[in-house]
Amino acid sequence: MSEKLIGSCIFGQSGGPTAVINASAYGVIRAALDAEEITKVYGANHGIKGVLDDRLFVMDEEDPEELKLLLHTPSSELGSCRYKIADPDEDDTDYKRILEIFKKYNVRYFFYNGGNDSMDTCNKISRYMESVGYACHVMGVPKTIDNDLFGTDHCPGFASAAKYIATSCMEINKDARVYDSGMITVVEIMGRHAGWLAASAALATAYGSGPDLIYLPELDFDMDKFLSDVVRIYKQNGKCFIAVSEGIHYADGSFVSEAKTSATDGFGHAQLGGLATMLAEIIKAHTGAKVRGIELSLLQRCGAHLASATDVTEACTAGMEAVKNAVNGVTGKMVAFEREMIDGKYHCKYVLLPLSSVANYEKKVPLEWINEEGNGLKHEFIDYVLPLIQGEPELPRVDSLPRYAKLKKVLAK
Amino acid sequence: MSEKLIGSCIFGQSGGPTAVINASAYGVIRAALDAEEITKVYGANHGIKGVLDDRLFVMDEEDPEELKLLLHTPSSELGSCRYKIADPDEDDTDYKRILEIFKKYNVRYFFYNGGNDSMDTCNKISRYMESVGYACHVMGVPKTIDNDLFGTDHCPGFASAAKYIATSCMEINKDARVYDSGMITVVEIMGRHAGWLAASAALATAYGSGPDLIYLPELDFDMDKFLSDVVRIYKQNGKCFIAVSEGIHYADGSFVSEAKTSATDGFGHAQLGGLATMLAEIIKAHTGAKVRGIELSLLQRCGAHLASATDVTEACTAGMEAVKNAVNGVTGKMVAFEREMIDGKYHCKYVLLPLSSVANYEKKVPLEWINEEGNGLKHEFIDYVLPLIQGEPELPRVDSLPRYAKLKKVLAK
Repeated sequence: MSEKLIGSCIFGQSGGPTAVINASAYGVIRAALDAEEITKVYGANHGIKGVLDDRLFVMDEEDPEELKLLLHTPSSELGSCRYKIADPDEDDTDYKRILEIFKKYNVRYFFYNGGNDSMDTCNKISRYMESVGYACHVMGVPKTIDNDLFGTDHCPGFASAAKYIATSCMEINKDARVYDSGMITVVEIMGRHAGWLAASAALATAYGSGPDLIYLPELDFDMDKFLSDVVRIYKQNGKCFIAVSEGIHYADGSFVSEAKTSATDGFGHAQLGGLATMLAEIIKAHTGAKVRGIELSLLQRCGAHLASATDVTEACTAGMEAVKNAVNGVTGKMVAFEREMIDGKYHCKYVLLPLSSVANYEKKVPLEWINEEGNGLKHEFIDYVLPLIQGEPELPRVDSLPRYAKLKKVLAK
Repeated sequence: MSEKLIGSCIFGQSGGPTAVINASAYGVIRAALDAEEITKVYGANHGIKGVLDDRLFVMDEEDPEELKLLLHTPSSELGSCRYKIADPDEDDTDYKRILEIFKKYNVRYFFYNGGNDSMDTCNKISRYMESVGYACHVMGVPKTIDNDLFGTDHCPGFASAAKYIATSCMEINKDARVYDSGMITVVEIMGRHAGWLAASAALATAYGSGPDLIYLPELDFDMDKFLSDVVRIYKQNGKCFIAVSEGIHYADGSFVSEAKTSATDGFGHAQLGGLATMLAEIIKAHTGAKVRGIELSLLQRCGAHLASATDVTEACTAGMEAVKNAVNGVTGKMVAFEREMIDGKYHCKYVLLPLSSVANYEKKVPLEWINEEGNGLKHEFIDYVLPLIQGEPELPRVDSLPRYAKLKKVLAK
């Protein structure tokens, strides 16, 4: 452990927002405000771009009660970014600028909350600061609804999205079976490369009201097999409910959603609707049935009203752990989760991973958790996800509508 | 009041499902099971079609605790239909069959839960039974997320959908503003002829996180005015969030969603996506901005997890009132709601309207509640809708997922 480092900190949010990324923000900010070693707490506006642009909000100026509301405020309250930082060996312009800002505000702690790319950014900044001999403790806080971060049992944000998806699928399933006429429903779920979210629709099925068929990007998609699955269920029940990951792709790697000139769909304008609409058209042409395509869209990642209390707690604790470890001298690490089963009960253990071991890897749904037909999940997946979605947070409301944090966002001079 | 009528009853659900139509079912079934005058309680499978097909479930066979779960089970648990019954003066085939079934089961009470068309069905059955001298008390129970039923202050189902829409819009608004790059978001909301649901997005705005612009079918849609509204807000804020009713139409009455060959959109295949996708494409072509179209689809009408407790209670009570009045000799009426403000506090008064006065009329959003620009709602609308969405029902859950009613659905012989 190095000696105590005294100075200010910057916290930034990066990548696609989630229902609980602000809970991690609260964890970092609250712990940083309380830490003796940290003299001032800055929140970067739009992640690393806010550092580069010298747009830092002074968190010390905020009302503690409003800050606490971040626990239940969806999306990235400080603003996010998708800025890909260069390799410092190739172009160190951004790093020089970051160092300049760090020196300007005497920043000795940097906390970055995001997914794969953000951990890469975090790792590069950490290495650069070390290489130029600027003492700064850099810590990553994980975040992604996609749950594809390497090295951690699961990711903050995933469980709340999974719960939203499962609950919504249970409701859609009820609605889509209401008439005695035939009906096929296709729900499109986020997840470009990993199928964790689409797989979560299996929770709805496990609890009695969910999709008949689920397709993940972990396996190559076969349109003929897909159509024969659908027709079989439809003939049997007069209804069929299908969940697909947006990232399903053919064996050649091309996304089904982008098969604009595919003979199978033959429309040539898939850009107009999304995958659900496109598959609905294909099924309709193939079966003549009434088909409805539904895209869960942004709703699934910002549905704070259906958040998992477990997820909120873990997201917040991850932020606090990052600060606790940083002031104790740790740097270049990401807070990660280990699952412990104690007397058959789920516990989350917070551990540290080197940023370099996390950055740019992707974790996918294990193939052995997918059924043999490739159109559903086995109980191993349910066992994995179920503990994560437990608990309903007590949501702050005004007149039965959500009450979100209202921050002053005072810019640092 | 006529003398006491002893016999069985049939209850049916009709039209599009809602988050609380099963709460009305519970109200009717529970009250009917408890009523001395009612000897047996049948639930028709798929509304009036279940009567015609002699598919009646014996509600007396159900576990009372499971029946109670209907209060929080979305969609129409007995099955719904969109069957348009003929005028008895033109074709009385269906009526003869209904009479046959009524006689077979000694049905003396008929309760029908639905919207405009269903009240018309109810009214026709009531008149027919009277014309042939068959003693049967017929009562309508209102239902529609569209809130367009004539003669009632509001309709069961509307408030829960409104709450779902408002909450979802608050969340979407947070998510859609997260990057510093420009972004335009279009949300499509149900309501073919009346704009009550799209108007409910104004709640989100009133509570600090909602659409900048809202367009209802009560006014003719002008694409040029629309685009200039959008561009103005987008230039001002770099963001624009728009809510549109699926029923917006041009001055000639044609739906914007169906303008397949319109010069304005120029794509000729609007059938692929819905209105949101189509408007997103038009805005993108016009502004070059990043635009996202979101359709709330079935989610908004089956979102029981976001139901209004007020709505659940009123829906259930409407069912109970129908039974109470019927056994007291009332027939040919629909239960309706009157709003009473007592000491500034909202109360719902249950009144009776002749079915003939309700059937086939449509109630729209008053034009004086829409702002002068025709792109937003005035506070009169908020004052109207706010009391209706109040209260969070205590939702039955298993493992943090909804627990819906599981009925045995024993068919009557």
